[in-house]
Amino acid sequence: MVPVGFLTHSVVFWLCGVTDCPCATLPHVQVPPFVLRQHYAKNKNLENRFLTGKHLEYSKWKRSPYKHQSNVICSFLRLDLLPAKNGEEVTKHFLQELLNILLAYISKSLNRSSKVLDFHHPHQLKEGLEGFSLELQDQPDNLEQLLVDCQDTLKYGVKTAHPCFFNQLSTGLDIIGLAGEWVTSTANTNIFTYEIAPVFILMEDIIFKKMHSIIGWSEKEGDGIFCPGGTMSNLYSVLLARYHFFPRVKTAGMLALPPLALLTSTHSHFSIKKSAAVLGIGSESVFLVKCDERGKMIPKELESSIRTAKSKGLVPFYVNATAGTTVYGAIDPLNDIADICERFGLWMHVDAAWGGGLLLSKRHRMKLQGIDRASSITWNPHKMMAVGKAADCLCGCQGLLQECNQLCAEYLFQPDKHYDVSYDTGDKSIQCGRHVDIFKLWLMWKAKGSEGFESQVNHCLENAEYLYYKLKSRKDFQLPEHSNVCFWYLPTSVRNMPPGPERDRELHMVAPKIKAKMMEEGMTMIGYQPLGDKVNFFRCVFSNPATQKEDVDFLLDEITRLGRELYS
Amino acid sequence: MVPVGFLTHSVVFWLCGVTDCPCATLPHVQVPPFVLRQHYAKNKNLENRFLTGKHLEYSKWKRSPYKHQSNVICSFLRLDLLPAKNGEEVTKHFLQELLNILLAYISKSLNRSSKVLDFHHPHQLKEGLEGFSLELQDQPDNLEQLLVDCQDTLKYGVKTAHPCFFNQLSTGLDIIGLAGEWVTSTANTNIFTYEIAPVFILMEDIIFKKMHSIIGWSEKEGDGIFCPGGTMSNLYSVLLARYHFFPRVKTAGMLALPPLALLTSTHSHFSIKKSAAVLGIGSESVFLVKCDERGKMIPKELESSIRTAKSKGLVPFYVNATAGTTVYGAIDPLNDIADICERFGLWMHVDAAWGGGLLLSKRHRMKLQGIDRASSITWNPHKMMAVGKAADCLCGCQGLLQECNQLCAEYLFQPDKHYDVSYDTGDKSIQCGRHVDIFKLWLMWKAKGSEGFESQVNHCLENAEYLYYKLKSRKDFQLPEHSNVCFWYLPTSVRNMPPGPERDRELHMVAPKIKAKMMEEGMTMIGYQPLGDKVNFFRCVFSNPATQKEDVDFLLDEITRLGRELYS
Repeated sequence: MVPVGFLTHSVVFWLCGVTDCPCATLPHVQVPPFVLRQHYAKNKNLENRFLTGKHLEYSKWKRSPYKHQSNVICSFLRLDLLPAKNGEEVTKHFLQELLNILLAYISKSLNRSSKVLDFHHPHQLKEGLEGFSLELQDQPDNLEQLLVDCQDTLKYGVKTAHPCFFNQLSTGLDIIGLAGEWVTSTANTNIFTYEIAPVFILMEDIIFKKMHSIIGWSEKEGDGIFCPGGTMSNLYSVLLARYHFFPRVKTAGMLALPPLALLTSTHSHFSIKKSAAVLGIGSESVFLVKCDERGKMIPKELESSIRTAKSKGLVPFYVNATAGTTVYGAIDPLNDIADICERFGLWMHVDAAWGGGLLLSKRHRMKLQGIDRASSITWNPHKMMAVGKAADCLCGCQGLLQECNQLCAEYLFQPDKHYDVSYDTGDKSIQCGRHVDIFKLWLMWKAKGSEGFESQVNHCLENAEYLYYKLKSRKDFQLPEHSNVCFWYLPTSVRNMPPGPERDRELHMVAPKIKAKMMEEGMTMIGYQPLGDKVNFFRCVFSNPATQKEDVDFLLDEITRLGRELYS
Repeated sequence: MVPVGFLTHSVVFWLCGVTDCPCATLPHVQVPPFVLRQHYAKNKNLENRFLTGKHLEYSKWKRSPYKHQSNVICSFLRLDLLPAKNGEEVTKHFLQELLNILLAYISKSLNRSSKVLDFHHPHQLKEGLEGFSLELQDQPDNLEQLLVDCQDTLKYGVKTAHPCFFNQLSTGLDIIGLAGEWVTSTANTNIFTYEIAPVFILMEDIIFKKMHSIIGWSEKEGDGIFCPGGTMSNLYSVLLARYHFFPRVKTAGMLALPPLALLTSTHSHFSIKKSAAVLGIGSESVFLVKCDERGKMIPKELESSIRTAKSKGLVPFYVNATAGTTVYGAIDPLNDIADICERFGLWMHVDAAWGGGLLLSKRHRMKLQGIDRASSITWNPHKMMAVGKAADCLCGCQGLLQECNQLCAEYLFQPDKHYDVSYDTGDKSIQCGRHVDIFKLWLMWKAKGSEGFESQVNHCLENAEYLYYKLKSRKDFQLPEHSNVCFWYLPTSVRNMPPGPERDRELHMVAPKIKAKMMEEGMTMIGYQPLGDKVNFFRCVFSNPATQKEDVDFLLDEITRLGRELYS
């Protein structure tokens, strides 16, 4: 395969917007016919690009400070890359250019003067913006076009690493975690057996031991599995609990069991209901236990719900306590719930997907007192610990994961291998192939040490405290709760209304309106939702190590500015 | 934060193996006390590294052809990286060094003279090899150490991209797919809403439309979801089928349903049984339909199993047909099975996790004739299409995924957003957060075009055919089947035995013995397993675009050589 053009060639092409491809006039360049066809087909897009000045942006990038060899060509095809013979140089240049793009993106993401997002509606993106076409063709694009596609994909996405991105529980970009993910995707293996993932399997083992000791479990008690997301982790916990009490379910199904009941709080994550639906228990079997004003499960209400379930002929077997609810960040009283579970002989799960990170902080870990009494725990390192998405784990009871899920497929888990096959942990999983999530977490732990994670968690909590105290001193904001920080913005017109349904109706529309304008302008992002009898309110969450107090100030100023513009 | 050492410093330290850290004697370097503590703690490991020549290897890497700025320092801490103030330069150098390591690894992985793996037993890796310690500390490591850790992690892993790695259905490393994964992890977002993943959500939509048209489905029929692994995809299909016939199951659970039956072949993947166990149907509800000698489901046996299930008072509702069984690569007669499903009113799922890729080839797609009649299909792009792990999808019936799984969490799927919220597809999933698997596939499609995927699939099949014809001409190998190529190696001693239990006992031990020695030597890897009444045999699978006929020859020669050594 020969080069089909140089950077300069492409720029010339875009600048002149000719209908004959200039490749044909360059004697040192040989162009396969299908590339010409493709150039013609793309002419319209390229003209667009020219008209919008897109080509200039691309040229600018070529002169970025990260550029090493400035006259490197990129207009090869993917067939020129490894494993092609002598493909090393092209591969090197292609990945080097990609690195430059990624470095520029990271740098921009962390620059407070750049936008968090450049919003476009679905139909706009689908129609193709400035030559960025999402459509797929029968013929290949060249490497240069692919790099531009990568750049455009990032450009029209959302910069979740931006210090002013407050929209999700998982924010931020850890460079070490990112490096870990790049290594993982280069290793490109599966973590079901020691045979093909020896190092990663052992890292899982070591990380679990570490997490168990932080939880307060002995080495014998602990077991666990990394799985794709907190909802899957919670599903595992229900699966394990059901198997623990009714092992016949694995072979005979729910028909061999009495009608079951699960208990979780009204503020808990939807995944408990989803698990009940998926596992054939039925979402109606989930009893929602009342919470206090702060969103914490009321232990007496739990007891009473257990009795109600029993009086209806159901068999309660599982209680989910939440350590860090999704909206308020509330932590259920774990010790009280553990007492009740012990008394009634129930499985206690703690959904600490969001709150688990607090265990790493000496200052905050007492908030989760009693978590060591749980039978299973969900803890998402990609939330408070800012590990790349998604890295979740469930820590359960030793041996039970294997018993509950194993099917001993002979093509994968051969018992006659020449090493200790107890390290072939894949049969614990309800998946077969499983993405390697462990390495980025392991590498981050190496890079930060437990002490580094501790100060990262403390930093996030300090930001939350700062926002809380800022809000307390302002009249145009009102706090419904004081964890995760949730609040309403009150335009003057609403502030002057007497409490009641009319005011609520008005207030309910404030957050969506401000959020819409916020996304159009793109300088910050924060989530909103209603909850129970509370109309739409903002929820600010802190998990991004890049966020500083000045960003918190900026957020409040932006909401105020947008609110005043909308309600003046 | 200040630099704590330079590369040369580290080398000096390793070379002299002193007990006092030489950092202290370098006036231009300031060392935080905890780094000194850490250096002391690691002294033993560093000495090991010195004794084994590890430091020389590291120095060699620093002079690798991928090196740009050879006197760049790496001995910073992660706190010097972005988002630290002025962290851009350190970040750039750190990721540049990482790129050099990854390029060297990729190059080595594709070099036929390098090993596929450098095998060590779990206890050896746990004890720490040549200074590579998996243990985690309270204090941070410096960036240089982290880079060495990345290098070591790759070194002691398995090179799944190696042309002689035949061990799994998913092999190979596509550079474009890898680039896609690096972009994805840099974007670090979640794919539940258009709000935070606008580009990726639309790419899923476009890829699904492409795949549906390849399957032969109309635009209206198709729907789908990318999920973490083929087993999860198959679980989705059972979930959808159950909901389709018995929508009450979502709220009321299995107790509101009659006893169900699922049907799948004896050669099908274990995930159908696992799904039945997880979903509360019970693994005993799975009826295993007999296969012919080639591993294909026998339609008459399917009919008879359906009748048997009914006679036992069960309600059959779901048939899984496999297009590419895990071991033989057999494809069930899809049209015949579709006829039966239509006649009995059953849901037909096709598990084309492995075989789906054949649809991309004009030459091979007729093998899957009838697949368009399926109600749902599993198709794993990370297998035959060599997309990075894991990228799996399920293509189901429009609307049903949403209905079956939605719970409308208000904190995530607010109906009062300012854009078309039909693009917030996350509620289709049984997960909440979901890894972005789509971009690498989209980028590969751009890079190859449909034509490129076609020739990649054809290339893999040509390798399989080549192996098949090679084996046919040799006496010391025997073929049980002729798809996925499966075969026994027959040492002379076994070859001379009369067929019978004694010969089988001997033959059963041949593959594990050869595999053990093969892994110790590390030059190639292939899987083995027993199946039904057949004792352990090798299974060679082709999905690695890097594999050529010479690698197939090498595999056979290696098995022969190892076999002769073991049985001489």
